[in-house]
Amino acid sequence: MLTPYEIIRKKRDGGALTKEEIEFFVRQYTSGKIPEYQVSSLLMAVFFKGMSDEEILHLTRTMMNTGVVVDLSDVPGCKADKHSTGGVGDKISLLLAPIAAACGVKVPMVSGRGLGHTGGTIDKLESIPGFRTNLSVAVYKRILKKAGLVMSAQSDSLVPADRKLYALRDVTATVESIPLIVSSIMSKKLAEGIDALVLDIKVGSGAFMRNLDDARELARKMVHVGQLFGKKVTAYLTNMNQPIGREVGNWNEVVEAIKILRGELAVDDVFALTKTLTSEMVCLCTGESLLETEKKVVKAAGSGAGYEKFCEMVHGQGGDMRFVERPDKYKKPKFVGEVKSSESGYVSSIDAFKLGMAAVKIGAGRMNAGDKVDPVVGVSVLKKIGDRVSYGDVITVVYANDSARMKPAVREIHSAYGFSESKPQELDLIIERIG
Amino acid sequence: MLTPYEIIRKKRDGGALTKEEIEFFVRQYTSGKIPEYQVSSLLMAVFFKGMSDEEILHLTRTMMNTGVVVDLSDVPGCKADKHSTGGVGDKISLLLAPIAAACGVKVPMVSGRGLGHTGGTIDKLESIPGFRTNLSVAVYKRILKKAGLVMSAQSDSLVPADRKLYALRDVTATVESIPLIVSSIMSKKLAEGIDALVLDIKVGSGAFMRNLDDARELARKMVHVGQLFGKKVTAYLTNMNQPIGREVGNWNEVVEAIKILRGELAVDDVFALTKTLTSEMVCLCTGESLLETEKKVVKAAGSGAGYEKFCEMVHGQGGDMRFVERPDKYKKPKFVGEVKSSESGYVSSIDAFKLGMAAVKIGAGRMNAGDKVDPVVGVSVLKKIGDRVSYGDVITVVYANDSARMKPAVREIHSAYGFSESKPQELDLIIERIG
Repeated sequence: MLTPYEIIRKKRDGGALTKEEIEFFVRQYTSGKIPEYQVSSLLMAVFFKGMSDEEILHLTRTMMNTGVVVDLSDVPGCKADKHSTGGVGDKISLLLAPIAAACGVKVPMVSGRGLGHTGGTIDKLESIPGFRTNLSVAVYKRILKKAGLVMSAQSDSLVPADRKLYALRDVTATVESIPLIVSSIMSKKLAEGIDALVLDIKVGSGAFMRNLDDARELARKMVHVGQLFGKKVTAYLTNMNQPIGREVGNWNEVVEAIKILRGELAVDDVFALTKTLTSEMVCLCTGESLLETEKKVVKAAGSGAGYEKFCEMVHGQGGDMRFVERPDKYKKPKFVGEVKSSESGYVSSIDAFKLGMAAVKIGAGRMNAGDKVDPVVGVSVLKKIGDRVSYGDVITVVYANDSARMKPAVREIHSAYGFSESKPQELDLIIERIG
Repeated sequence: MLTPYEIIRKKRDGGALTKEEIEFFVRQYTSGKIPEYQVSSLLMAVFFKGMSDEEILHLTRTMMNTGVVVDLSDVPGCKADKHSTGGVGDKISLLLAPIAAACGVKVPMVSGRGLGHTGGTIDKLESIPGFRTNLSVAVYKRILKKAGLVMSAQSDSLVPADRKLYALRDVTATVESIPLIVSSIMSKKLAEGIDALVLDIKVGSGAFMRNLDDARELARKMVHVGQLFGKKVTAYLTNMNQPIGREVGNWNEVVEAIKILRGELAVDDVFALTKTLTSEMVCLCTGESLLETEKKVVKAAGSGAGYEKFCEMVHGQGGDMRFVERPDKYKKPKFVGEVKSSESGYVSSIDAFKLGMAAVKIGAGRMNAGDKVDPVVGVSVLKKIGDRVSYGDVITVVYANDSARMKPAVREIHSAYGFSESKPQELDLIIERIG
């Protein structure tokens, strides 16, 4: 007979758990039959002893099967999604999903909310008044079929085991375990019913993975597990040593994405990341050459076809189109603060974690899962790494609704900047492709 | 501000916890303010990352201070105790405590109950009808002053943190952690108010420590922590590769001890262990030479002075003296089974764990803390390692009150025996002294 004690001890002593042991533990825990103190000690043992690819496969599948696994076989075409491990100013999904849909890929995207220093796609989309992210499976499929894309929040019925496990990991210092991260992400992505997946593994000061080797291992494991499920999966390691684009917040990030989709604004890193990840996603579906696909993606972005898909999706999900058409309709935040350069020279570094935390503190994100987010507050990053600055130049602008929070945010963002006399080396935005 | 999360993470990453962090964690847990799932993940992190001697010292002191610390300063003389990590047939305390008392040492002994394959001194003593082991501090001191020894069970007010922690470790596979074992044992021993302590660390098939290196590390840590508290502490590593003495059970072990104390029975290993550990205990108190002390101890044992002290203690604690004087008064178990040798030659090994578990299964011990123990059932080990046997010789006798349990016990004990054609090498009973 399987007992939680024997399973904990086996993992503690470095053994590989069998499919039956993993299924027993996850199912009994999800149904409340194994107490949390036994689960947390197993999680800590996994933190130290790891898991083989086979164990991760069983864990992922068992977790996935605790909830609904969406069947999209009646939606014609190749279904693909992208997942980012989380960054600061990461609005890529808002551009990638509609552009990929414009290229003929079906994008059933399930996203998360922000937590800690990183933002979440769902919070950003919900800054559009009326936008609904809790969709029934029927509505979800209808929008996907019609618009070619749908952007939804994770429903309660999707991988309930992960919700319980993640909450427990969060308070027992077992979040940073590669097998646990892989199974948590992949069980949710695989439950969406997709054929292909592009992973954006962020590395650097603003990412959960600060170390390149860890990020590479995580990427390899995720790709491998996805492939074991018969999916087409590619991962990119990308640079998260400064915020992505010019805006950090919610509504201001949506506006930045809209303006880029409309061709009114050019933001180099946002465009480059979008092009690479979208092309990869389309390639996985079509099997065409990357060069040809990139041309198609750039065309879809430049022609306004991506923006049209974005509008179809927002309209389909109940968003007020007047805000998309005329972003200045939104009520502005009450207070504006300026962060000024204290040196002349070049911006040499930006601590993205610090900047992200400053944005959280003015209300753009949350420290705890239950916190409310203020959609209009945020930070505009005017100067980025490599930019020339003179003493007194405005390097970032802070938009807040609470004057008391302004000063500490300005101070924190100022301390996140580093300066140098000579122009620093450019960062590689795309570090590595793993597939 | 200290948070459980930060403390778990620090230990997980190999950091040394401060006095404040350890106090915070133990106190908040004991008072129910830290949930068990955070405690169990810290325990597993300690299992993997260990603790420095300083951390063990703080942990031991903090645990000790969650309960009553007995003040024996009004009891004249040197107060000393012995603690064994647990074995099969280990009745040494029943002889050592009265003999040490006969040599002038005050012995305030707090013992445990049996669990799993090992027996407990309290269960053995309680097989004497009327014998009380739950004593108030006042009664405890009165008996100690008068008889020179007292043998009591652990009261609820002694180290409550350990009771909670041990129960949690027991179900989360974190029992086998040296810093946790050291702090658990030493916090209880130090709370007794003793001046000196002899530790009997059992090694072998019937012990918790099966490996000599682990046992040695445990012994060194315990001695060191005790010394940091200003106590005189010595440890012995002793052999637990076969049962100690001839009897395994409760009442039958008491009878064996009584007969040895009266000089009616000679059992080599029981006598040798008693002589060594008692002499060490007396030496720690008097500072006299070991050779002189051994003579004194042998004399106290041989003269009947030890038996007199035993009787004073039993009488003081309410035990029915008629049972001590005439052990055959006790009702015999209903069923007697014989385990016979299946070979001719020598006994080469006895798996003490298996034999101990067979005794538990006939009712002499408990699998769970709440189980009842049958005082009169047990096993007589007629043949031990090195003894010559012929095919069909009776090697052990099983005494049970439930016929259904007899057959499996006989089978299990038979399978615990190994035989060889030539006489096996003798085991070293006393492996090492650490002090």
